[in-house]
Amino acid sequence: MDNALGDLTVVEGASFIAGPSCALHLAQIGATVIRFDMIGGGPDYNRMPRTDTGESLYWQGLNKGKLSIAIDLRSPEGRELARSIITAQGPGSGIFVTNYPETGFLAHNALATQRADLITLRVQGWGDGRNGVDYTVNAAVGVPYMTGPTDIPPDQPVNSVLPAWDLMTGAYGAFAVLAAVRRRATTGQGGEIRLALSDVAMGSLSNLGQVAEVSLGADRPRSGNALFGAFGRDFRTRDGHAVMIVAITPKQWSGLVAALDLDRAVAKVEAALGLSFAIDEGVRYAHADRLYDLISPAIAARDLAPLTKALDRNSVCWERYRTLKDAVENDPRCIAENPLFDPVLHPGGSTYPTAKGLARFGGDAGRPARAAPRLGQDTEQVLADHLGLSAGQIGDLMDRGIVAGQ
Amino acid sequence: MDNALGDLTVVEGASFIAGPSCALHLAQIGATVIRFDMIGGGPDYNRMPRTDTGESLYWQGLNKGKLSIAIDLRSPEGRELARSIITAQGPGSGIFVTNYPETGFLAHNALATQRADLITLRVQGWGDGRNGVDYTVNAAVGVPYMTGPTDIPPDQPVNSVLPAWDLMTGAYGAFAVLAAVRRRATTGQGGEIRLALSDVAMGSLSNLGQVAEVSLGADRPRSGNALFGAFGRDFRTRDGHAVMIVAITPKQWSGLVAALDLDRAVAKVEAALGLSFAIDEGVRYAHADRLYDLISPAIAARDLAPLTKALDRNSVCWERYRTLKDAVENDPRCIAENPLFDPVLHPGGSTYPTAKGLARFGGDAGRPARAAPRLGQDTEQVLADHLGLSAGQIGDLMDRGIVAGQ
Repeated sequence: MDNALGDLTVVEGASFIAGPSCALHLAQIGATVIRFDMIGGGPDYNRMPRTDTGESLYWQGLNKGKLSIAIDLRSPEGRELARSIITAQGPGSGIFVTNYPETGFLAHNALATQRADLITLRVQGWGDGRNGVDYTVNAAVGVPYMTGPTDIPPDQPVNSVLPAWDLMTGAYGAFAVLAAVRRRATTGQGGEIRLALSDVAMGSLSNLGQVAEVSLGADRPRSGNALFGAFGRDFRTRDGHAVMIVAITPKQWSGLVAALDLDRAVAKVEAALGLSFAIDEGVRYAHADRLYDLISPAIAARDLAPLTKALDRNSVCWERYRTLKDAVENDPRCIAENPLFDPVLHPGGSTYPTAKGLARFGGDAGRPARAAPRLGQDTEQVLADHLGLSAGQIGDLMDRGIVAGQ
Repeated sequence: MDNALGDLTVVEGASFIAGPSCALHLAQIGATVIRFDMIGGGPDYNRMPRTDTGESLYWQGLNKGKLSIAIDLRSPEGRELARSIITAQGPGSGIFVTNYPETGFLAHNALATQRADLITLRVQGWGDGRNGVDYTVNAAVGVPYMTGPTDIPPDQPVNSVLPAWDLMTGAYGAFAVLAAVRRRATTGQGGEIRLALSDVAMGSLSNLGQVAEVSLGADRPRSGNALFGAFGRDFRTRDGHAVMIVAITPKQWSGLVAALDLDRAVAKVEAALGLSFAIDEGVRYAHADRLYDLISPAIAARDLAPLTKALDRNSVCWERYRTLKDAVENDPRCIAENPLFDPVLHPGGSTYPTAKGLARFGGDAGRPARAAPRLGQDTEQVLADHLGLSAGQIGDLMDRGIVAGQ
């Protein structure tokens, strides 16, 4: 299963997160991904974070396991070469992932004259062609006005640090590509798939019921660290650790009450209000403040170690807040004992935990994580294997600066 | 293309976001999705937000366009019925999306005795089987300590309101299912795919270079609303509107400088520092405070209307912050002029803008958005069409409370 896409060859001409992560997902379960870049690197080649020696860890993370070819994309000959790589023949080829503008030299219709059944996934900022990145799209769809402490003024945005729309677009793009490959196998037809961050954002907010919510009613106000619609919030232990505790299902709630020995206190509130918190999360949400008034002191009266035992014994849904470094170094579920990660030596000489594909297929250990390429390290191989160029032809292209090795 | 998965039948026994959104993606490009629920609804059936009449907009958003069958999953006969639906024969059937526990009555190995080539996508909290939801996983991997204003104490978490890991798991799950279907078509083999929110989170942070960053160095500190590694932040106009402006590429930066007539002021700073901001986003990031000191007053000196013209004329990457309701009602790109949305009448009598599948295939208008089912509305149809039960058999199951209609 780890090699389910072993017969596919995907060409990537993309930068930043969405396009490259889409092709990464495909590569991690077997597709050969040829990423072409401008000689010297595209706009994301030096993106931070970087190693001490200047290697972009961001670029390495998004491009691990891909083949890299460097082309002078400003020259007509280099552009023609890129088009030839994209439209190379073969039943598993002819798949192109890009965020280049739809009107440029990599327009789908122009490419399709060279290969009629080409599949292009074009990542866009906005569906109408306007430019946009995760952060600007997020501002436009309202998430920063829902995020953050309740004592921040309502008109003060709090940005997300996680580029969720980029990541989601990458994953959905991989899904859309496989759907298109599937259709091509039966109908022979390719085509262009356009996937806009703005559509991913608005569509997701529709799928979550939030577009409906504001269409029929008011905006959702900030709720700080509390979950909307259910019981869940951050608490602090006696020894100062922040924990996130959630009780969405009846079992999670009863477990929490039992873990904190609050059965009688909760029953008293239930009697006073004439209701039960046991079944309906909405009832817990409606009276969340009353419940927080019980739970907070109970957490604050316990140190983390005994609290951990009590919560885990009762299958409560909770976690301790950690920084990422703390998680990487001290939570064995994240890296040390996680089969998702392999230590990998990357260009520039750094070895660090590197993720495989995100799913575990049939109990396999998974296809091993692979190193990022050096920029242009596969230029010769791609030209020889995928375009069938001779050593002389490749040497000539290199001499004239149309392509470059590493 | 909108019907690329028209030959697939997916059975969903899942709740909350990740599993249901995975099946939703499949349904939106043609798959028949049969969702089974406990009679009376599963744990997400009443999840907020709700309409005035108590319909869950969350449930409707995640389950639109699916068939709904209601079964008494506590009875042995109901459980056997669910298993029969999951393992029904047919080349495009035998695909199961779930977040039920791996050890329960819907364990893959038990199901596979009834259909050997069954594909199961099992969404999990943690890869090791521990329970977890988006909010707890997010706490454990460090995002809340990176989010929020810089003047919040470092040990005070700021939760994400967007369930990014859930959404990403749903999209990646749809990708993984298609990969498995593809493999089954050639090898005849099914299998179980386990997809944990924790793996999606840690793997994504690896793909972004952040696991490498903290493995090799320190935690990334909070940066408020400013982008990490490039120029981007919120600003406020003279008439009080918050705007998010980003300049990652050289063109975005030169456009911003030109739009604000800051060429000479920027050149002065460049001369004083002996460097250029034109090419390297890292240089802009390293001296971001100096640049914000120029840009902020320039924005604060302009009202939104003339600023909009200047920024758009220069192709600056920016957006005005809006609430979601503001975006839905007043930004025509989001709903009014967006082919992603159709107005749809849903159970309970509410009509609201409803999203189609997130990608635009080959310029199609897209498969129309569909209404959510009423719980159990397709019970009879599913039993007749998918299991071949007679009207008498169905009536008997209903009479005995093993299944229920709407």
